[in-house]
Amino acid sequence: MTMDVTFLGTGSAYPSPHRGASALVLRTEGDCWLFDCGEGTQTQLMRSPLRAGRISKVFISHLHGDHLFGLPGLLCTISLNTNPDAQQALNCVDIYGPRGLRHFLRVTLGLTGSQLLFPYAVHELEPTADQSPEEGQLSLEMTAEKGPLHPQERPGRTIPLDVSSDSYLLFEDKKFVVKAFRLFHRVPSFGFCIKEHDRPGRLKTEVLKELGLKPGPLYGRLKAGESVTLGSGRVVLPTDVQEESIPGRKVCIFGDCSSVLGEGALSLCYGADVLVHEATLGNEHQEKAVDHGHSTPGMAAAVAGACSARKLVLYHFSQRYKPSSLQKEGDEDDVSELKRQAEEALQDSGVEVTLAEDLLTLPIPLRRPR
Amino acid sequence: MTMDVTFLGTGSAYPSPHRGASALVLRTEGDCWLFDCGEGTQTQLMRSPLRAGRISKVFISHLHGDHLFGLPGLLCTISLNTNPDAQQALNCVDIYGPRGLRHFLRVTLGLTGSQLLFPYAVHELEPTADQSPEEGQLSLEMTAEKGPLHPQERPGRTIPLDVSSDSYLLFEDKKFVVKAFRLFHRVPSFGFCIKEHDRPGRLKTEVLKELGLKPGPLYGRLKAGESVTLGSGRVVLPTDVQEESIPGRKVCIFGDCSSVLGEGALSLCYGADVLVHEATLGNEHQEKAVDHGHSTPGMAAAVAGACSARKLVLYHFSQRYKPSSLQKEGDEDDVSELKRQAEEALQDSGVEVTLAEDLLTLPIPLRRPR
Repeated sequence: MTMDVTFLGTGSAYPSPHRGASALVLRTEGDCWLFDCGEGTQTQLMRSPLRAGRISKVFISHLHGDHLFGLPGLLCTISLNTNPDAQQALNCVDIYGPRGLRHFLRVTLGLTGSQLLFPYAVHELEPTADQSPEEGQLSLEMTAEKGPLHPQERPGRTIPLDVSSDSYLLFEDKKFVVKAFRLFHRVPSFGFCIKEHDRPGRLKTEVLKELGLKPGPLYGRLKAGESVTLGSGRVVLPTDVQEESIPGRKVCIFGDCSSVLGEGALSLCYGADVLVHEATLGNEHQEKAVDHGHSTPGMAAAVAGACSARKLVLYHFSQRYKPSSLQKEGDEDDVSELKRQAEEALQDSGVEVTLAEDLLTLPIPLRRPR
Repeated sequence: MTMDVTFLGTGSAYPSPHRGASALVLRTEGDCWLFDCGEGTQTQLMRSPLRAGRISKVFISHLHGDHLFGLPGLLCTISLNTNPDAQQALNCVDIYGPRGLRHFLRVTLGLTGSQLLFPYAVHELEPTADQSPEEGQLSLEMTAEKGPLHPQERPGRTIPLDVSSDSYLLFEDKKFVVKAFRLFHRVPSFGFCIKEHDRPGRLKTEVLKELGLKPGPLYGRLKAGESVTLGSGRVVLPTDVQEESIPGRKVCIFGDCSSVLGEGALSLCYGADVLVHEATLGNEHQEKAVDHGHSTPGMAAAVAGACSARKLVLYHFSQRYKPSSLQKEGDEDDVSELKRQAEEALQDSGVEVTLAEDLLTLPIPLRRPR
């Protein structure tokens, strides 16, 4: 199964002509999951090879405008491009994010008279009080959605922290299990861990042939992990005839943060194939970065190192950092310096560092069998 | 006083890389008034020669997302670029728009924890029941703002229709009087009429010299319209020594509509220097246009003709119409055909037709003295 990540916006604070506001898409065989949706995300999508209509799930890391203000418009535009007779019109778009997101969408879609051609549901994560300073917390009064559901809204779940694993189970399907973990920021922020299930190794057909086994139900039982007794009385174990299992890939996407919170992030993200982390300002501005709830390349590298990630991708750069393609000789604030800082912190660790740019697509190759 | 209009977005329904969503700026000596604010307006502003920080007033014609979804983000970005010590930080941004706008901003800014460095006030126009089909009307329950004001929100006015003039008086200052008028659309929609005050003609200094009058308080009294008695007993009337007054300019900006409603629009817009009107689809799609609450070039021309406007500017084009610069030989849906249709309807009327394009700036020259 092919899998890749496309960055739609890599700028912090606001969208600019050079860097869109935060948004990225994880694509698996045409199915698209959107992570954050700053203003202008729909226009960036149109510039990319992705199709907005393929977005089936949306994840919002936190409720700051540069990660959220594009969502109502994106939903409207997806709807405008939906064929009302198509299957797509029946599929519910699942939206995950912090408490308050349901009210936000209900009011923005409701007051603008926005009717969608598909249903949607907002599943809210319950933040804990230690995820932000007190002034960043929203009262229950502010986030409680009032009035009836939007006509296309389906009831969503409220997902509390699972204290034993320090994580939130968003969902599990045949291919993936997706969990969220807590981060510390000016407002409650979350990261997401998308873990592909391991796949059983292929059957060694040569060995099966030698044993006189022909393709059929016995193959299925072996593949499912059962042992099989031959006519000769010989017992064949799955491990005798099966190659090693193929470990599922793991992609971890951090929301804005100046640190992780609790054990969830590091334990979920351990061994990530790709760890996407913000690096708003260079190491030399660490005090300012932390003061605003943000990270530097050095801080992102420390997280990636602690997780033994294979690849660290930096994004969410202050708009002072122009994309490399627009960088001129002698310009201050060279974004490649952010990469250098992370690489320096990770030298000899084996963690590769990549700078995200708007519209960059990063393939996530299959892992080799164990 | 210089005066011009800059179109930031001229597309309907949603923003695209080729046409932004609805927004335009009327600029008078550096002071900028924004009319509508679709998603991506702040990015379009960055591409223009205008400065977002100069926006002192915002007018929202109706509550559809393609005219509104950019507003919370724009306010946040203006704030990020505000010097907290500057005078600007003290000036209140006045926002005018239909009932429901106050609640929209309070919720979007509130849930995203958006703190602004300047105060704002939302002045709501009370729509009448006949401005839209019943399904386009928002209940009082939906639009009633709940909870306390946003920390930077100042109480705004609620402006009912002045039935005798069929218009809404938004404000009057030393330079302008600004009124709104009713339109018919899928949701209640308004147009805005910005009328510059007439200016008294210059004093004829040659004539004053002949009369023996020297610059001083008597000049001021004549300029203010008073007559003056000379030592000789001769009475000098202002009209004796003053050139004709300079009529103020009039700019009329229509929100989305399939028709005007009542007498307000035509009587306010009569003699407009510039009349900006939507033309979402060509004349050949009139049924579809009207069905969606929109106009064709022919319909826009009829309004401009009835108003004896000097210049009709068409905008709010369906995204099917590419900008002329991207139009290729043989492409269907040529936007210049929309101009042709309006010109055809207005032939011999003396009304000039212009097509708006993103980032086009249109000067509005001073009128000649009467």
